[in-house]
Amino acid sequence: MNFSSKILEDAVNALSSLPGVGKKSALRLALHLVQDHSDKANKISEALIRLSKDICKCKVCCNISDHDICEICKSPSRNTHTICIVETARDVMAIEDTNQFKGKYHVLGGVISPLEGIGPQDLSIDLLIQRIKSEQTEEVIMAISPTIEGETTIYYITKLLKDMNVKVSIIARGVSFGGDLEYADELTLGRSIVARVPYQIQS
Amino acid sequence: MNFSSKILEDAVNALSSLPGVGKKSALRLALHLVQDHSDKANKISEALIRLSKDICKCKVCCNISDHDICEICKSPSRNTHTICIVETARDVMAIEDTNQFKGKYHVLGGVISPLEGIGPQDLSIDLLIQRIKSEQTEEVIMAISPTIEGETTIYYITKLLKDMNVKVSIIARGVSFGGDLEYADELTLGRSIVARVPYQIQS
Repeated sequence: MNFSSKILEDAVNALSSLPGVGKKSALRLALHLVQDHSDKANKISEALIRLSKDICKCKVCCNISDHDICEICKSPSRNTHTICIVETARDVMAIEDTNQFKGKYHVLGGVISPLEGIGPQDLSIDLLIQRIKSEQTEEVIMAISPTIEGETTIYYITKLLKDMNVKVSIIARGVSFGGDLEYADELTLGRSIVARVPYQIQS
Repeated sequence: MNFSSKILEDAVNALSSLPGVGKKSALRLALHLVQDHSDKANKISEALIRLSKDICKCKVCCNISDHDICEICKSPSRNTHTICIVETARDVMAIEDTNQFKGKYHVLGGVISPLEGIGPQDLSIDLLIQRIKSEQTEEVIMAISPTIEGETTIYYITKLLKDMNVKVSIIARGVSFGGDLEYADELTLGRSIVARVPYQIQS
């Protein structure tokens, strides 16, 4: 690309460092901002600076938060005896969007993955164990991706919790609602037959 | 979306104001920046602030530039007697990338479009006319999109240039190189037959 402006070139290079943004998309965004007469570029800049400077991790659950303790951990209306263990802050948002869970969360920060050099010590597992002890948790729900790394992580945490008086459950796996059976993968379909549940008429 | 952080929410709203960036993409970008431990967010912010503050239009050709006069207008090696008229700064980059044009440019800033309320006075046409007079231009090349608005703009400028001793040409239109004839649209294919040119063996 032949840039007529070094400033434009720098902006394109900076924007294309984002995941999924190629040089051509970055150029389109940068030219949009050059031609934009509102305060959009400044607003985005300010938001990104605050994102890198002011955002922190909740000291209790490791979720993304504006303060030391996040809104969910602070909330008196949430059930403190159930902790849902997730990989990332994105998963907390996905579960919150369902409106089906009123307990608290714990964000691991990833899954155990020897190939990527991520061991248990890189995740917030120690903090989770401390929390379960101090908060007198009754149930932990594993809402972790059903991948090999995810299963390893679930197995590891479950072993750690074995001698602690806490119920461990795992989110249901099976065919998706609205999905066609013929398009479900063999493993999912096979397991959903093995793990069938008694049918209940919804009232 | 249930955000656990107002800062994150602001960043997602700011990023999703960009064209082609939806809320989910914006969230993915913002979470990437939160988890990124390099200086990426600051670099992008700085680049965008400079983009909105320091970038200007070349006073001669209206192209995007870091200075009052752009590099192309300043360059002594470019042919000053040919001006290529384009719609936007992006078009200058596209033509420069071909390495086939060594003259100068003039960026109109759009095309005449009554539906969108863009008239000749909103484009840099007056400046173009002054320029052609003062620079003793011999040829102008219309590199404007072959749309109804583009054709209108070409017609308008050509009429203005009628009494000035300047050759007006238009970039060749026809089927794309590497394209299949069966996929070319009827209008393009039809016109490319009507506007056929003598075949020359390339030496």
